[in-house]
Amino acid sequence: MDFSIRAAKPEDSKDISRMIMELAVYEKMPDQVKISHKELEQDGFGANPFYHCVIAEVPEKQKSKDGHTTVGYALFFYTYRTWKGRTIYMEDLYVMPEFRGKGIGKALMSTVARIGQEQQCACLQLSVLDWNRPSLDFYLAKGAQDLTATEGWHFLRFDGDAMEKLAQEAP
Amino acid sequence: MDFSIRAAKPEDSKDISRMIMELAVYEKMPDQVKISHKELEQDGFGANPFYHCVIAEVPEKQKSKDGHTTVGYALFFYTYRTWKGRTIYMEDLYVMPEFRGKGIGKALMSTVARIGQEQQCACLQLSVLDWNRPSLDFYLAKGAQDLTATEGWHFLRFDGDAMEKLAQEAP
Repeated sequence: MDFSIRAAKPEDSKDISRMIMELAVYEKMPDQVKISHKELEQDGFGANPFYHCVIAEVPEKQKSKDGHTTVGYALFFYTYRTWKGRTIYMEDLYVMPEFRGKGIGKALMSTVARIGQEQQCACLQLSVLDWNRPSLDFYLAKGAQDLTATEGWHFLRFDGDAMEKLAQEAP
Repeated sequence: MDFSIRAAKPEDSKDISRMIMELAVYEKMPDQVKISHKELEQDGFGANPFYHCVIAEVPEKQKSKDGHTTVGYALFFYTYRTWKGRTIYMEDLYVMPEFRGKGIGKALMSTVARIGQEQQCACLQLSVLDWNRPSLDFYLAKGAQDLTATEGWHFLRFDGDAMEKLAQEAP
């Protein structure tokens, strides 16, 4: 199958939004998606973007049964480790089910890794749910280390009221 | 004790570098620190900074026994959740041992939360090592959720050769 990977443009926001929802359906939490394609466009394509995205496209003649030619995406941003410096973090990696098993996911992830190298990032990081064994195995087979298993890292979040309360205590 | 919190400036890079090393010594891994104050200055204070930092200062008359008035820092950056949007991530929170127990750590963290709110971030995230019980308890007491414990998030990393190999496979 022919496909190409390219940097997302503002006009891809609707397709990205559609695939974010498809991924949430796969993860059985579609009601958790609170973001619109307008917000995605604003947050990803301004002067200081909050994220970056690459998308996978197929030729018109190979479009999905619903008529889509944009069939996958990887969304990422830059983070920082105070011991090692620049890091690239892949938040989402998604390929539409009917286009899986054709190397599109690997191509998206490899593109993110290459972009990271170009930006002098020392490593590529991501998070996976422990019940999502196929994804976990995919990443481990590609050489990822599971730092939660080996070093004991726990991921914490202050949400809603807890964050509000913290912010109010600022001097 | 008097102290103030302010945004870090390029000339704070040496103090930030010193405190990063102090934190690594506390975590028993000082040999892991591979970053110089020059890199910190370049990465944190350019046109598209890879991180942001706030520091805690005490008046000259209350300086540390080694003569430092910069006694703590919180280092953070912006990340993105595709379901909720903008997020602020606190990578490091550190207060020099002789200045602990005076509310400086809370003030630094609250300042990061307030900055996140100003940037319309929906939440504040961070990671903690499971053996670092005092820090874990501190964050949980302040209202953080432990998403590794409750949802099963694992943190993965492609480092060195694994990242290199991925990048080489990019189309």
